[in-house]
Amino acid sequence: MSLSKGITLVENDLREASSLLRTLKPTGKAFILGVTGPPGTGKSTLVDRLIEVYRKRGLKVGVIAVDPTSPITGGALLGDRIRMAGHASDGGVYIRSMASRGWSGGLSRATSQVIQLMDAAGFDVILVETVGIGQSDIEVVSVSHAVLVVLMPGLGDDVQVSKAGLMEIGDMYVVNKADLEGSDAMVVSILGVVRGMGPRSPPVIKVSALSGEGIEKLEVAIEAVRSRFKHGDVELRLRSAKGMIIETAKSSLLERLGRLSQPNVERLALLVVSGKLTVEDAAKRLVR
Amino acid sequence: MSLSKGITLVENDLREASSLLRTLKPTGKAFILGVTGPPGTGKSTLVDRLIEVYRKRGLKVGVIAVDPTSPITGGALLGDRIRMAGHASDGGVYIRSMASRGWSGGLSRATSQVIQLMDAAGFDVILVETVGIGQSDIEVVSVSHAVLVVLMPGLGDDVQVSKAGLMEIGDMYVVNKADLEGSDAMVVSILGVVRGMGPRSPPVIKVSALSGEGIEKLEVAIEAVRSRFKHGDVELRLRSAKGMIIETAKSSLLERLGRLSQPNVERLALLVVSGKLTVEDAAKRLVR
Repeated sequence: MSLSKGITLVENDLREASSLLRTLKPTGKAFILGVTGPPGTGKSTLVDRLIEVYRKRGLKVGVIAVDPTSPITGGALLGDRIRMAGHASDGGVYIRSMASRGWSGGLSRATSQVIQLMDAAGFDVILVETVGIGQSDIEVVSVSHAVLVVLMPGLGDDVQVSKAGLMEIGDMYVVNKADLEGSDAMVVSILGVVRGMGPRSPPVIKVSALSGEGIEKLEVAIEAVRSRFKHGDVELRLRSAKGMIIETAKSSLLERLGRLSQPNVERLALLVVSGKLTVEDAAKRLVR
Repeated sequence: MSLSKGITLVENDLREASSLLRTLKPTGKAFILGVTGPPGTGKSTLVDRLIEVYRKRGLKVGVIAVDPTSPITGGALLGDRIRMAGHASDGGVYIRSMASRGWSGGLSRATSQVIQLMDAAGFDVILVETVGIGQSDIEVVSVSHAVLVVLMPGLGDDVQVSKAGLMEIGDMYVVNKADLEGSDAMVVSILGVVRGMGPRSPPVIKVSALSGEGIEKLEVAIEAVRSRFKHGDVELRLRSAKGMIIETAKSSLLERLGRLSQPNVERLALLVVSGKLTVEDAAKRLVR
């Protein structure tokens, strides 16, 4: 089965996709890099740069662009049709956009499934790009071997950035749009936060995805992690596997609840409305 | 126990809060209005107007301001300290902000729990305000008796608004910032979408939350639903009860998965990393 066909299956038929995936052995060859950050920080341009970097090395690159937000927020990712244009003639690049699937939680599982398909199809590097605005994005990147957080000057003070939960999840930080005023201050501010967070402090790199400035430095930082991955680092591999297992389990639990609860929830809601049952007790019965 | 103490319990101790809530009988007195829409459409100002409207009627008003996004997106709601200021001396108003609780799904349950506390404390109207940018917001407002979607001119064409999923969930639509160019066109465009969606087409009302223009019209539209609610409309009550039961059930499933899976997931991830198990099979075992 072709990769596109497999992905279409993942998007349309949860059960059949699950059967297909149970026949696929993980090769463990694909390095998964999560790329996240607030809307407008230039994640897509940076991802395009990284595609170039890895294509030059002769590696096959898959991109999963996850968009859990609506198109009207301004944070929407470009559709794959537009983005594919630049790499249209390159068989070594596969880009796929994925939007919300009707309920939160579904996206993380679908991402994990597309990763498995890309891994089986022989991709070397998989970039998972997502808008970092809510908890669901953090769940999406939990399937990665490493997470790159993209920030830019003018996002507000470091306290705000910390609050967003982005300072806990990065294995490396990029301050994009390095030409903008305040980029050095932003680097200092991020360093101040991440240095207090653990023994192995993540690198903070100033780049301009547009001009290419700083991309080589970033490449070195990513390669440091990818090299650990290639040498079989168990910690990295366990982390991604755990993320995928948990997100898949969550999603299948919620899917099952949605499927099984329809007739019961009506009956329970009547009991709640008539004051015979509390919401908490009704939920308990539903879950049982 | 005071309302604030109850809410603090909900925020900090899931189990104890659940025990507390199982002793509270739903009074079914509080009318729950969800208010959602993209960032920057003026939801908070509109909610403040609605507080005024219901305080003039002598009703007790509770506000739950839910923010599933991070503060750096620009979509952040104002903290309750700032917003309380305007109503500080008014014992008939209670405003509470709630931010993400570390994992998606938790917010909907917490909202449902705070609603139950406010209902028990004798509130007449509960406004649940949330930023409408993703699936999780739609889940949050599923606990309401009615949903008010706030839009404004300049959000893009109707196709974009439809895509956001907001056109499926509204029981009434507000085009706020009526003084802006394009507000009439926006009304026409929304009418065009919602009229095709079902037999009972939701009203679309042009307002300016800032100047107060159109608020009376909105009040009439809300009162039409609230009057159905007060007369015991079962359809409305079932809808909210179902939403609360499902969100609470989902949340408790995920919480249990998180609690029980810790030791198992490590073992399963090792099997996946060594190629002995697929992610799908590992997730199946975890859920079992």
